[in-house]
Amino acid sequence: MKVLVVGSMAYDSVETWAGKVEHALGGSATFFSLSSSLFASTEVVAVIGDDFRATDLDRLQVKGVGLDGVQQVAGKTFRWGGRYSRYFETRETLFTELNVFSDFKPQIPEHLKNSEVVFLANIHPALQLEVLNQVTAPKFVALDTMNFWIEGALDDLKAVLTKVDLLMVNDEEAFALSGVGNLVEAAEKIVQMGPKAVVIKRGEHGAWLFAEGAPTVVPAVALRRVVDPTGAGDTFAGGFIGYLARAGSFDQTCLEQAMVSGTLAASYCVEDFSVDRLEQVTLDDLRTRHAQLAATVTDLVVDL
Amino acid sequence: MKVLVVGSMAYDSVETWAGKVEHALGGSATFFSLSSSLFASTEVVAVIGDDFRATDLDRLQVKGVGLDGVQQVAGKTFRWGGRYSRYFETRETLFTELNVFSDFKPQIPEHLKNSEVVFLANIHPALQLEVLNQVTAPKFVALDTMNFWIEGALDDLKAVLTKVDLLMVNDEEAFALSGVGNLVEAAEKIVQMGPKAVVIKRGEHGAWLFAEGAPTVVPAVALRRVVDPTGAGDTFAGGFIGYLARAGSFDQTCLEQAMVSGTLAASYCVEDFSVDRLEQVTLDDLRTRHAQLAATVTDLVVDL
Repeated sequence: MKVLVVGSMAYDSVETWAGKVEHALGGSATFFSLSSSLFASTEVVAVIGDDFRATDLDRLQVKGVGLDGVQQVAGKTFRWGGRYSRYFETRETLFTELNVFSDFKPQIPEHLKNSEVVFLANIHPALQLEVLNQVTAPKFVALDTMNFWIEGALDDLKAVLTKVDLLMVNDEEAFALSGVGNLVEAAEKIVQMGPKAVVIKRGEHGAWLFAEGAPTVVPAVALRRVVDPTGAGDTFAGGFIGYLARAGSFDQTCLEQAMVSGTLAASYCVEDFSVDRLEQVTLDDLRTRHAQLAATVTDLVVDL
Repeated sequence: MKVLVVGSMAYDSVETWAGKVEHALGGSATFFSLSSSLFASTEVVAVIGDDFRATDLDRLQVKGVGLDGVQQVAGKTFRWGGRYSRYFETRETLFTELNVFSDFKPQIPEHLKNSEVVFLANIHPALQLEVLNQVTAPKFVALDTMNFWIEGALDDLKAVLTKVDLLMVNDEEAFALSGVGNLVEAAEKIVQMGPKAVVIKRGEHGAWLFAEGAPTVVPAVALRRVVDPTGAGDTFAGGFIGYLARAGSFDQTCLEQAMVSGTLAASYCVEDFSVDRLEQVTLDDLRTRHAQLAATVTDLVVDL
């Protein structure tokens, strides 16, 4: 099945213990599509300014990412700057310049309206709704959001939640959206709002899937070196959604496997700034890392 | 094998989203021994003031915890007060009154000097060393510590680290002690300081064991209701060390099983204030929760 992602393409300036980059390729749709395209044909709908480097478009194109839905308009590309604390416990946003992104109206090209799998990255929920009005018969729709929309556009967000299969958020977002402070309870409340499944992205602590019955917990890979976590959540989403699209199935077994796939992809994203490591990842790399992840889990045998 | 724990017995005043308790039974040796005694004969060495309630000693005694090493002296018992943020991301210490604990000199009763398994809870590393000078031939020694000693008594801490088999700390403590900001690297550096194994306690995110080869990651139980995390780390340690003592073996297999045992015990500790839930836990409860934990992990199958 084909994947369509609607989100941002951006230039990020990021500072971590390992160094600093300026105006480096970033954005949710960028990270997502590089990861998703490892598994399935992936098309991006986004907006970029006239300052966007052709070489950066090439970096996506060479990996097979479809860019027919990328509108280039007059003005500057969305820019974000942030700084992470030494151990990545906190992130400080230094600046957010929406630029051309502030007038973004997603237009799905005619030949992409029949996309089967849709990922609505973190944009205004009213725009997420507009996307869903343009696609004709999606088989699976997943949604990301953030506290800014939970606080400022809750009605729109609730409306779009009734139309999606899966919500992907972090702990804080799940608490804010559900109004409860326990993750299990929060996920249950969110499922009552519409989506059949909820994935909680927990960064270096892994991810939880709430679909059928008990939550499924997948730990992150124990890495020796983390350079920059920017984009890890979108990379996780890409590995997850791309995997499902390739499988063409969305049952519990596939969702659990997709959790692993997303985890493996994200583990590469954080090893360098921007997409520098991610754009080189192959399925063979994922297999290597899968062995590494599998070695860290036990069978939980205990003699009680 | 018999377990000896040297640590604190305290009265805690704790505030969480769920409510508030004052002067409730707490302390590292208290939580540890209630947990450890589920598996093995456990003796406490600690100091309490003349305000310590006889009924609180009874609560330990009725669970079979040995109190011959508990000195009751004139003065007030160690008191600690703290407040947790809504989702337990942060803890604010409201007061610390060392009281009789400030003059604590651990005296191991003669008949306990042959204890085979020793847990040195979080006290001044010079006192931890004094304990080790009093025990005759321990088979396994584990150590807890905190940033206060890492910053203020590093030489003593380094000396005691050369004499122990296992260090149990959290992320921050591992970073501070090793001077590196990656958990895998930090654990490797700590192993070079003496202990054969390092356990990183990660609270609601579970725990990591570094012994042979790759780290072993055990997730925490996904709980529907967390009331008070105070003592969870010591309860984990008790379930871990008690399990090893009962097994009488300290190989990789036993260490991994002990990780699970500690995880299950800690999951009960946090369900109520103080030891209110922990003191009622049975091995049957642990079996129930083991099934619950096992249901949350996947076999990590993925088709790459």
